[in-house]
Amino acid sequence: MRKIKISNHGVVPLEGSCTFTTLADKAGAKDALACRVGDVLFDLGAEIPSAISEVDFLTYDMPEGWAVFQHSAAHLLAAAVKRLFPDVKLGIGPAIDDGFYYDFLTDKPFTDNDLSAIEQEMKGIVSTDLPFRREELSRRREELSRKSAESLFKKRGENLKLELLKEIPPEEKVTVYYLGDEFVDLCRGPHLPSSGQLQNFKLLSVAGAYWKGDEHNPMLSRIYGVAFRSAEELARHLEKLAEAKRRDHRVLGQRLGLFILSEEGGAGLVFWKPKGAMLRHIIEGYWYEQHLKNGYQLIYSPHILRSGVFHTSGHFDFYRENMFTMSVDEQEYVLKPMNCPGHIIVYQSEIHSYRDLPLRYAELGTVYRNERSGTLHGLLRVRGFSIDDAHIFCTQEQLVDEVRGVVELAMQFYRDFGFPNFKVELSVRDPQNADKYAGSDQMWQVAENTLVQVLDQLSLEFKRMEGEAVFYGPKIDIKLMDNLGRLWQATTVQFDFNLGPRFGLEYAASDGTRQAPYIVHRAVLGSMERFVGTLIEHYAGDFPLWLSPVQARLLPIADAQYEYAQKVAGQLTQSGLRVEVERSDEKLGAKVRDGEMQKLPYLIVVGKKEVEQGGVSVRLRGKGDLGFMTVNQLIERMQNEVETKAAPFSTT
Amino acid sequence: MRKIKISNHGVVPLEGSCTFTTLADKAGAKDALACRVGDVLFDLGAEIPSAISEVDFLTYDMPEGWAVFQHSAAHLLAAAVKRLFPDVKLGIGPAIDDGFYYDFLTDKPFTDNDLSAIEQEMKGIVSTDLPFRREELSRRREELSRKSAESLFKKRGENLKLELLKEIPPEEKVTVYYLGDEFVDLCRGPHLPSSGQLQNFKLLSVAGAYWKGDEHNPMLSRIYGVAFRSAEELARHLEKLAEAKRRDHRVLGQRLGLFILSEEGGAGLVFWKPKGAMLRHIIEGYWYEQHLKNGYQLIYSPHILRSGVFHTSGHFDFYRENMFTMSVDEQEYVLKPMNCPGHIIVYQSEIHSYRDLPLRYAELGTVYRNERSGTLHGLLRVRGFSIDDAHIFCTQEQLVDEVRGVVELAMQFYRDFGFPNFKVELSVRDPQNADKYAGSDQMWQVAENTLVQVLDQLSLEFKRMEGEAVFYGPKIDIKLMDNLGRLWQATTVQFDFNLGPRFGLEYAASDGTRQAPYIVHRAVLGSMERFVGTLIEHYAGDFPLWLSPVQARLLPIADAQYEYAQKVAGQLTQSGLRVEVERSDEKLGAKVRDGEMQKLPYLIVVGKKEVEQGGVSVRLRGKGDLGFMTVNQLIERMQNEVETKAAPFSTT
Repeated sequence: MRKIKISNHGVVPLEGSCTFTTLADKAGAKDALACRVGDVLFDLGAEIPSAISEVDFLTYDMPEGWAVFQHSAAHLLAAAVKRLFPDVKLGIGPAIDDGFYYDFLTDKPFTDNDLSAIEQEMKGIVSTDLPFRREELSRRREELSRKSAESLFKKRGENLKLELLKEIPPEEKVTVYYLGDEFVDLCRGPHLPSSGQLQNFKLLSVAGAYWKGDEHNPMLSRIYGVAFRSAEELARHLEKLAEAKRRDHRVLGQRLGLFILSEEGGAGLVFWKPKGAMLRHIIEGYWYEQHLKNGYQLIYSPHILRSGVFHTSGHFDFYRENMFTMSVDEQEYVLKPMNCPGHIIVYQSEIHSYRDLPLRYAELGTVYRNERSGTLHGLLRVRGFSIDDAHIFCTQEQLVDEVRGVVELAMQFYRDFGFPNFKVELSVRDPQNADKYAGSDQMWQVAENTLVQVLDQLSLEFKRMEGEAVFYGPKIDIKLMDNLGRLWQATTVQFDFNLGPRFGLEYAASDGTRQAPYIVHRAVLGSMERFVGTLIEHYAGDFPLWLSPVQARLLPIADAQYEYAQKVAGQLTQSGLRVEVERSDEKLGAKVRDGEMQKLPYLIVVGKKEVEQGGVSVRLRGKGDLGFMTVNQLIERMQNEVETKAAPFSTT
Repeated sequence: MRKIKISNHGVVPLEGSCTFTTLADKAGAKDALACRVGDVLFDLGAEIPSAISEVDFLTYDMPEGWAVFQHSAAHLLAAAVKRLFPDVKLGIGPAIDDGFYYDFLTDKPFTDNDLSAIEQEMKGIVSTDLPFRREELSRRREELSRKSAESLFKKRGENLKLELLKEIPPEEKVTVYYLGDEFVDLCRGPHLPSSGQLQNFKLLSVAGAYWKGDEHNPMLSRIYGVAFRSAEELARHLEKLAEAKRRDHRVLGQRLGLFILSEEGGAGLVFWKPKGAMLRHIIEGYWYEQHLKNGYQLIYSPHILRSGVFHTSGHFDFYRENMFTMSVDEQEYVLKPMNCPGHIIVYQSEIHSYRDLPLRYAELGTVYRNERSGTLHGLLRVRGFSIDDAHIFCTQEQLVDEVRGVVELAMQFYRDFGFPNFKVELSVRDPQNADKYAGSDQMWQVAENTLVQVLDQLSLEFKRMEGEAVFYGPKIDIKLMDNLGRLWQATTVQFDFNLGPRFGLEYAASDGTRQAPYIVHRAVLGSMERFVGTLIEHYAGDFPLWLSPVQARLLPIADAQYEYAQKVAGQLTQSGLRVEVERSDEKLGAKVRDGEMQKLPYLIVVGKKEVEQGGVSVRLRGKGDLGFMTVNQLIERMQNEVETKAAPFSTT
């Protein structure tokens, strides 16, 4: 008789050998999907090893349980594909954060049209409730076991699996998982007991993906999917995905004429079209205004710098592969991946005294980083982007005020841009590994305490991320929550203990000694590109009036009213509003529909009646007809909406 | 008896052989320095060739006469240097636009301290009035003549001259000029009759210069100088040079904290320090405002582009050596040297109809060009600069309005920035060489007529530069005249017949056909860098109030008034003014001097009296004490000065 302690289920006595399924039954852990002993995961069907006394059951609500669920669904997908397309070769099929995928080598890449047939086949496998079965090859007979695995996959023509097999270190066990008798995969597991639990799944999309993510390898066909425990959860998720798709900034960016990404121009490089450029210009104008008001000083620094600067900064040691380099006069230059060295060169161009501090150098600095082409995504992951950057140089005594100033500024930005919800994370060092960090213990303590103190002063909840700090200092990250509840990285307040000593930065203290300033590196919006992507998805393109590139469009019903429309447009423009006049020959209904498609906040209809009565008829996006008003009433209404940065009415 | 016709001196009868000096005497051409027959220049002392019947005398007031004068002064300089430093080897010594220079190879480069000794020696040579004497070697005995020239310079150890001698084509005459008996130089001439005319000269500076401008060659020591006919002219010129030096934007840029050029960062790359960045930000704000008001649409395009775009544009054929290239994902990318291709990619991202035109795409686009390091100069010639760029796409019918719009916008910029004087140049093609140009005859006629018509409509005088157009279209250049009468390149309005066809740009005309738009490429200020350099030199750093990075500084007389000064500063800031508060412990006099050195427009003194009376004492740059006023009076005065963009009072 031995006793096994189970998290959340007390202690269960066991006699003789039995499986984890039996244990789960005895413990009443009905929702167990697999289990964990120490660091090792087991299928529920596995025999309980004799030496153990504590077990965690993994459930669907736990990240690891969710991953097992998705992983089993990936095998289900692969089994169905092999039934329908026996010649397809298996790549890999892991769980990911929001579901699973499986990569297949096939002459004819899958298309969205293939998905429903595959889903049908999967449903068949689910309805027969086939078991997942592990075959484990004992360590003692390792040589033999590898050979038998090799011959198994060779017989099946699974060349990619053979490649993976060769990469498994000799000291590691080789295991395969069957689903029923037909399908087998090289896999560590664990898996669900059987396919019957995978009732509620959906295949979402197909995409190309290089084998092992290397563009020199063949392109595989990747199918994405997701599985849920209940039909309701699945339905809710699909609805959210549909909503996310409606808000997809890449689609809206194209449709609303905001920006393009051009294959011809280069991957990950954004061309801001007039309306997107106007949106960015408005944001930049606001950004400059707020920063100047808050005592920041502006800097413009060049986009290329001699590489020596990045040797001094240390970036050549740990960031080289992300930097674009070129040759100028037989010297190596770098297309800057960050703005810090430029600001430091400016700091060093004068001798500073404590009287000058704090110095807050701000720049909308465009940087270029060599992100892998496979990771590029719309405005969110690009190769060229403008950081709303600033570096604060200050004394220790000024730290709390300075950091609080940054966080308060961020809060004001969130209010003004309409993000009431956000999440704060504090990344601190791992004190067990103190020697891997730049800066003294004392500096880390001061810095971490400063960040905590500021968050406490402002009553901001935060998640403390132990050991998540980068080597050069602790930081605060703030993620914005959008209208769909998704999180988007925005603000970073980052101490930098690396650059100061490397460049030998100093100031003259009041006692005449040379002291090292603290350096706080911060961005409020993150980058113009990512923030505008966030804004588009948050508002589904229905921007608040103050941010709308075009705030109103005049729709003359007939040619006869065109001149009057021009006159009204002139009055609105004079009042600082951004308007345009529709010039097409379409019918009014078509003009209104087009204006709505373009998500224009105000559509101003002028027909014979409006001209006679000297006013306009107003349609407000998301609200509909506001009826007749005078031009002055309209201007007052719009100006008020701009000044208060009012939230928009939504059309979606 | 023959008759020689002389420009401006009628016809002179001559008998037998004689020199040009005799001819000049007979003609009463007292100011003749040398003469020209057809394309050939002669010394006055030369015999008049028998076949000629027309002569121009070159005088000091003619560009060619001025050049002879300076060239002779360069020989005078070299003769003096050889007397003082016999081991120095002669390089070359030409006349240049604003004087002359001579390059010397010497172990110990000259310094400014050497100049006065050399000037003394030159004066000695002037006072003895040594003759310039030409030795010409007849074509028939060419072989012999080269050899004798070779042995002449070999004997004197003039190795650089021997190098030059080798480069003279065999069909060309070899000539040398003596000054007195000691000094001899390989030289085409012509020269003045003797050194006595060179009374009024000045050596100005020394600099390093590579032999033949090639950085792989030895560095020579170059001495710059200038010579005038009268002492008054020389004095006036030196005064102007001193004034130009006081206005040197590189010196003021450093002293006023506007910008730095950093060897560490890279040659020709500008780091805008806070005050310069604020000045630039103000200019950019004005630029955006005016452009949006004038119907321009904004664009932001990336700084790097795939090189294919520049192959399509043709820049790889004729601009390659000025472009920085790099490798991204094994593809070649270019750091853009101009913004055109980016704007064209944006144009091509939509189908355009005649209803969309004109389109005016504007961008403050930063470009990078590989200018040779020897040509870099402060903000005026750099490797990275931001063009205030725009491309107008329009129909032929819209051309006059569009071009006039650009020129009128430029005129408004000149008024607002305080440049009442400017020069307009119209560059047209050489009709003799019609096939070297892109675009049809008809397009060139339309374009050139458009430019002329606009200049006529606006009653602007212009200089027509025949054959000066670049291959892709005619243009207008406008140069600003600064307060010292110097000219600075600013505006360009340039037709482009190259890019449209190369990228296949089109729009749908009202008759449904596909038509090619006209493209007008324009910059009003030229570049932010050069324009700010121009502004600094124009105003000698005494910027008008609306452009001043810091408009006022509060000077509390003692610590007791610091808080009051802060309060007043707050009121000014609230009113949209840019102010700072002096924090040093210096005496008031020192504070005022520092504020004047910093060229701050307003110095606001607050002492006990001002606090008691609730006002301020105001000192205005260039005007002095304005006495006591209330804070509101001060604000009103300053706001009015900003709003009217009033010209500054100058301190210099």
